[in-house]
This record gives sequence, structure tokens and C-alpha cells, in this order.
Amino acid sequence: MAKEAAAMTEETQYMIGKHVGKETENVEASGDAKEMRAVILAGFGGLNKLRVTKKAMPEPQDGEVKIRVKACGLNFLDLMVRQGTIDNPPKPPLVPGFECSGIVESVGVNTTRFEVSDRVMAFVNYNAWAEVVCTPVDFVYKMPEEMTFAEAAAFSLNFVAAYMMLFEVANLREGMSVLVHSAGGGVGQAVAQLCSTVPNVTVFGIASCFKHAAIKDSMTHLFDRNVDYIQEVKKISPEGVDIVLDCLCGDNTGKGLTLLRPLGTYILYGASNLVTGETKSFFSFAKSWWQVEKVNPIKLYEENKVIAGFSLLNLLFKHGKCNLVKSVMDKLLCLYDQKKIKPVVDSLWALEEVKEAMQRIHDRGNIGKLILDVEKSPTPLMASDSTETSEAGEEEEEPEGDNDSKERMPFIH
Amino acid sequence: MAKEAAAMTEETQYMIGKHVGKETENVEASGDAKEMRAVILAGFGGLNKLRVTKKAMPEPQDGEVKIRVKACGLNFLDLMVRQGTIDNPPKPPLVPGFECSGIVESVGVNTTRFEVSDRVMAFVNYNAWAEVVCTPVDFVYKMPEEMTFAEAAAFSLNFVAAYMMLFEVANLREGMSVLVHSAGGGVGQAVAQLCSTVPNVTVFGIASCFKHAAIKDSMTHLFDRNVDYIQEVKKISPEGVDIVLDCLCGDNTGKGLTLLRPLGTYILYGASNLVTGETKSFFSFAKSWWQVEKVNPIKLYEENKVIAGFSLLNLLFKHGKCNLVKSVMDKLLCLYDQKKIKPVVDSLWALEEVKEAMQRIHDRGNIGKLILDVEKSPTPLMASDSTETSEAGEEEEEPEGDNDSKERMPFIH
Repeated sequence: MAKEAAAMTEETQYMIGKHVGKETENVEASGDAKEMRAVILAGFGGLNKLRVTKKAMPEPQDGEVKIRVKACGLNFLDLMVRQGTIDNPPKPPLVPGFECSGIVESVGVNTTRFEVSDRVMAFVNYNAWAEVVCTPVDFVYKMPEEMTFAEAAAFSLNFVAAYMMLFEVANLREGMSVLVHSAGGGVGQAVAQLCSTVPNVTVFGIASCFKHAAIKDSMTHLFDRNVDYIQEVKKISPEGVDIVLDCLCGDNTGKGLTLLRPLGTYILYGASNLVTGETKSFFSFAKSWWQVEKVNPIKLYEENKVIAGFSLLNLLFKHGKCNLVKSVMDKLLCLYDQKKIKPVVDSLWALEEVKEAMQRIHDRGNIGKLILDVEKSPTPLMASDSTETSEAGEEEEEPEGDNDSKERMPFIH
Repeated sequence: MAKEAAAMTEETQYMIGKHVGKETENVEASGDAKEMRAVILAGFGGLNKLRVTKKAMPEPQDGEVKIRVKACGLNFLDLMVRQGTIDNPPKPPLVPGFECSGIVESVGVNTTRFEVSDRVMAFVNYNAWAEVVCTPVDFVYKMPEEMTFAEAAAFSLNFVAAYMMLFEVANLREGMSVLVHSAGGGVGQAVAQLCSTVPNVTVFGIASCFKHAAIKDSMTHLFDRNVDYIQEVKKISPEGVDIVLDCLCGDNTGKGLTLLRPLGTYILYGASNLVTGETKSFFSFAKSWWQVEKVNPIKLYEENKVIAGFSLLNLLFKHGKCNLVKSVMDKLLCLYDQKKIKPVVDSLWALEEVKEAMQRIHDRGNIGKLILDVEKSPTPLMASDSTETSEAGEEEEEPEGDNDSKERMPFIH
């Protein structure tokens, strides 16, 4: 995509430490237009594999847009990338990140539709967590005037995924019911808002108890993820629900399928259990990833059920569906202009704070989206924020709700 | 549903033999209003398990409609019922048949919406292949004035199934492509007609070669079921198709899945291979039924694919979706009135000819729907029509297209 990979060997690496602030000043003071800051994943594993580095400045190729990044989205998928638990991961070292917002700095030859200074949001096939990214014009969208860069970085992936699952895969219509796991997350909140654009849709949300107060207005019914929500949902809706959106994977799939109404659709769109699971090692993760129970099509036939998989990144970068995604983005921007939807930003973090941000997602502490704010200076680390002795994906899982000391209140609601 | 089961022991059985015509006269001459003719399945197995019998006349219960049957639909599923290869089959002896058309003869108490003499079509949970049936009012629909009884019996199951698969399960829209197996059958022809109501839909049909001339106008592209149609479809549409409708089950499922475009939907709606398969014994059938390859949801996730099962009878009789089916039927009758759809009737058969009719479906000889015409007298058997020495489901499968001697031209196109 850009010329970054070749320049890898030239980069200077900066460890994130107690004196992050000072180092960042150095980088910013350098003012060298041939280099930029970026988050780098040195190898698959825990948080200690992440560093902020200087890298060669990418230049746009044919049909690409060069973006001065203002904000980047942080997703569960980024934790999976870090652990190497995705299918066919690229070889590290790499710059993670799949979405950003910013200002067009230049365009490649044969690049139409965008001009220098345009405010844009974009999908990137890795490399988003940097001061500058280059990405093909097909993955770039103009931002509405009123939208902030943080909102834009929180918008693309979550709302496009939520919209496509509800309306392209599942055909959500008036009077239907939707069950969404991780209701407090970025996709969960987007799902709730999009459901409210259709009359009389019931949304059942599953979320950790401590989030309920913050998100209760967005859901028709909320259940604690540690209780037997299947029974609770059945009490309210004995027939089950029309759509289940499951980012959890694993042993919940079978349970969720029993909740589906006839003609209902079960959509598997992620695998956060793989990251937050009980087991320690990489191999255990990988094993659980592939041990998902298989579905007997005859059972689907007898029960009139639908099961779907949805991966927006594959759709964009493997399956060439950028035109379809563009049309969905157009519809979403209409809804944004009509003030029917609005991304929920949980918190903003400096690039140097990426570890703490990842820990917050890992601990399910977030309500809405975590954003890497490229222009933000890192806040001084507090003792309770330290992740040096407890790394996401390598620690024993702690009971939900008992980790208050790690929580940070959302910056923006 | 009706009082037939209790009266089973009183029935008189009539063998279908060389002198069917004479026996039928006897039955018709009896004129006893306490009895009626019906096809009975004495036990699971070959064609020899079918007989025409006299049975006690059913009377409508609360909320039921009593229908003087004019025509019944014959479906692949009826062959599976005969062989006992459906899940939880009822205990024989039983009267097969799931759909019919006729005239309302009386209604039970608390039965609204229908009056004596109404021309109706109906779904029945078994017992359709008889001179009189009783079925709950929820499964009965008024026939359009111009519709013949044969058309009505060919309409309900095929068009409702085709419509729900295309529009409820798969969300067919402008510009999409559909692959349908058994393109010459009742559902295949209904699918083709419904696809033509949406602009710019490409229909790929799979059918035996000898049917191509008769059905070529209904399909965009036609392929012989004995060639590698996967490659042929990919030549025309390298990206694959949006919807695959598969009534075949078994080893074609995996092949069909590879043909799906990202976001495409694979619908499994029947299992005709179970009936026409290569194997002989009931147990082999049952085994292949359950040995269908399972689907890995992770694969669906990576490939952005959807797999669905659809069983209209379960939807009606197990899942209580009669209101949804009623709304679909209303839409279909609109399309019929607008002359956009019209059931294709392959041939009409007397009740006493049910064996030959089943053999014709088994041999895939039909184009459109086979109808049991209750008022039709059986035609004299011709040597080439005899099924005494070659029974469906028990013979070695013959190569398709080599059984011309068994073929009967469609009566109605």
C-alpha cells in the first residue's frame, strides 16, 4: 500500500516508559518531514510488544490518499492482531490499526474525489495508528462538517458493521427483536442507535452490570453477562428473538442459537472471548478459536434458522466490496446529518497510551469507542493504571466488576 | 385435527391393480356420505405401501374448515414421508399429503372467514390426499376466481416456499443472482417467476438436460445437473452468486457454498437426494440424511457467508407462523392477479395413479407440479408405465435422460 515496510529497518524505536512525555517531545521537536511517529507491534504477544517508533513517512501510490491522522479507532480486533490470533496474520513488526480520521495532505496520481485539506475518515488495511497513513481512495469518505475527528474515528467500523449486519445480512424490520452482546461497546451502541431508526424494535443488551446505568437508555432490556440471560430473555419473549449479534464466539453460540425465533438470524461478527478468555497461552487461544462448535445444516432446516458470519475487514480488503460499503456509508452519513445516530466515544488516548487503552478494552471497561488521539500528550501514568505487572491476555481473568481501580471514566458521552 | 385416526380400523382397503378403474367405480357408486376415498400409506417403504382405501368421513372440529377436495399437490417431501426418512414421522397407517384445493363443505364451530361453497386452497398436516379434508382455518386461503383447482393445488407450497426463501430469508434485490437446483420442479419454476418480478435478477438453473428445451425461457442460464456446473457458473459470474437454493443436500452443500458471493445466502430447503440417492436401504438414506457436512461458523465469518435452513411445513405446523404465511399468501395472490406468476402444472393423476405419479417425481421426469386430481378416473396402465418391477427408492438409480420410455408429457404448461 505505502512504502513503509521497506523502511522498517531504518526506524528508531522508543520504549513507552515512565518518561513517555519527554520522549514524545523529542519526536515532535524533530520536525523532520521524512519521518513520523507510529505505534509498532514488534511481535505477537502481550502489551510489551507495543512501542511508539519513528518510521519513514509514507507517500501515496496511484489511487491513494495521504492523510495527516488526527484520530484512530481501537477495536477488539486490534487485541487479536496483537496476540496473533487472527487468520493469516501479517508478519510483525507491523503498525496496527484499521481506521482513522484526519486531513488529506496529498493525493497520488489518478486519485480523484479528494483534495488537499479535505476532512476525511478512512479504512486502512493495517498502519492506521500513525501520524500519517496512505490508503486507496475506495476506503476514504468525507466527514460531515459537524463531526469531530474523534467521532469520525469512532464512526466508520462500528456503524458500517452494525448497519450491514442489521440491514444487509439480517433484514431488520418493524416489530423485530435484537439481542446484542457487549452492548456497551462501540458496535453495541451503534446497533442500539440503528435499531431506534426502525419502529417498534426491541433491543436486548448483554453487558457487565457496572455499565448498566450508563447505557440503560439505549436498550429496551439489559442483562448482566454473568447471569443466565437466555432464561431472562425467554421470560420477556418466550418465542425468542429475531436477530442475535454475537461477538463472543465459543460456547455461547449454541446457547444463542436456542434463543432464535423461526426465520431468525444469528450473526457471528467477532471473537472477543478469544482475547479475554480464561486461558493463558497463545495456543489455548488459537485452540478455542478453532474449536467453535460446528452447525448442522439439517438442524437449521428443521428449525428454520439462519446463521451468518460477518467480517467487515474481509469484506473490504479481501472481498472487494468497497462500493457496497460506500453506499452504506452514504446512508449512515444521512442518518448522522438527521441526528438519528451519533458515535459514542469512551475515551481518548495518546499513541503512547495504547497499552492502557488496550487494557481497558480487555477489561471490558469501555462504554463506546476508544480513540487514539494522535495530537494528545500522554497523561502521567498513575500507579493504578500500570499494566507492567498484569498484561492483557496473559493474566488470569479477574471477575468482572471487581476491577474498579483500573477504570477510567469516559471522556465523552 | 379430524377424527380419522380413530376410524382407521374400520376402513376397507382397495389394492391398486390392473383393474383399478373397475374398483374405483365401485367406490364412487357406494355414495355413502359416511365414507370417503383416500390414499393410505400402510407402512414406510416402497410404492407397494400405497393404497386407495375407504375411510370414515372426517368432520370439522372447532376452528376447522371441511373441504371437498378437488386437487392435491404431490411433493418430494411426500416421497420422504413414504420412505420414513423425515424426522419424527407419524406412525403409519396414515394418509399423506400436505396441500389441496377444493370447495368448503361445512365449517366447525368458531370458524370465521369462510362459508360453504367457497373455493379454497389449504395446507394440511397430513391427510390431504383424500376426497374430504378438515384443517384449521389458519391454513385455508380463498382462491382467485380465475384460478383452477389444479393450479391452486400447485400454488400454495411451492410459491410460498419460493417467496419466503427469496424475500424473507435472503432479501432478494435488484441486480442479484440466484442459483436454483431442480430448476424444472415446482419450487424451481416458482423461484424463476418470482425472480422475474425483481429488475435485473440473473437466475442460474440446474436441471436434467432433457428438460432444458421446456424451461429455458424461465432461466437466464441453464446447466445440466450432470456437468460441473460450479465451473460453468464461475465462467459467467466469477464472483459467484448471491443466493443458492439447494433442495439436494448432501455432498453438494460444500460445493454450493463455494459458489456464494460475500454476503451471499445459501438456503437448504429440502433433501431430494435422500429419495433418489444411489443407495438402497432405508438405513443408508437415514445415514446420509444425518451425515451432511457440518458448517464451521468461523468459516462463515471469514468468508462473509450466510447459511439458512427453510422448512415451510415446520414453519406452519411446528413454529406457528401461519400469520406470516398468510401475509405472504396475500402478496402472492396479488402477483397472481397481476398475471406476474402462474403455477406450472406438470400432470394430473387420479388417486389410484399415485404410484406412477411418485415414480415420475422420483425419476425427475416432471416439469412443474404433479397434481392428484380427485375427480379424475385412472387411465389404463400401459406397459411402459408399470412400476411393479422397479420401485422408487429401491431400484438402482438409472442414468438421467435414459428413461424416456417412462416419460409422460406434461398435461398442462
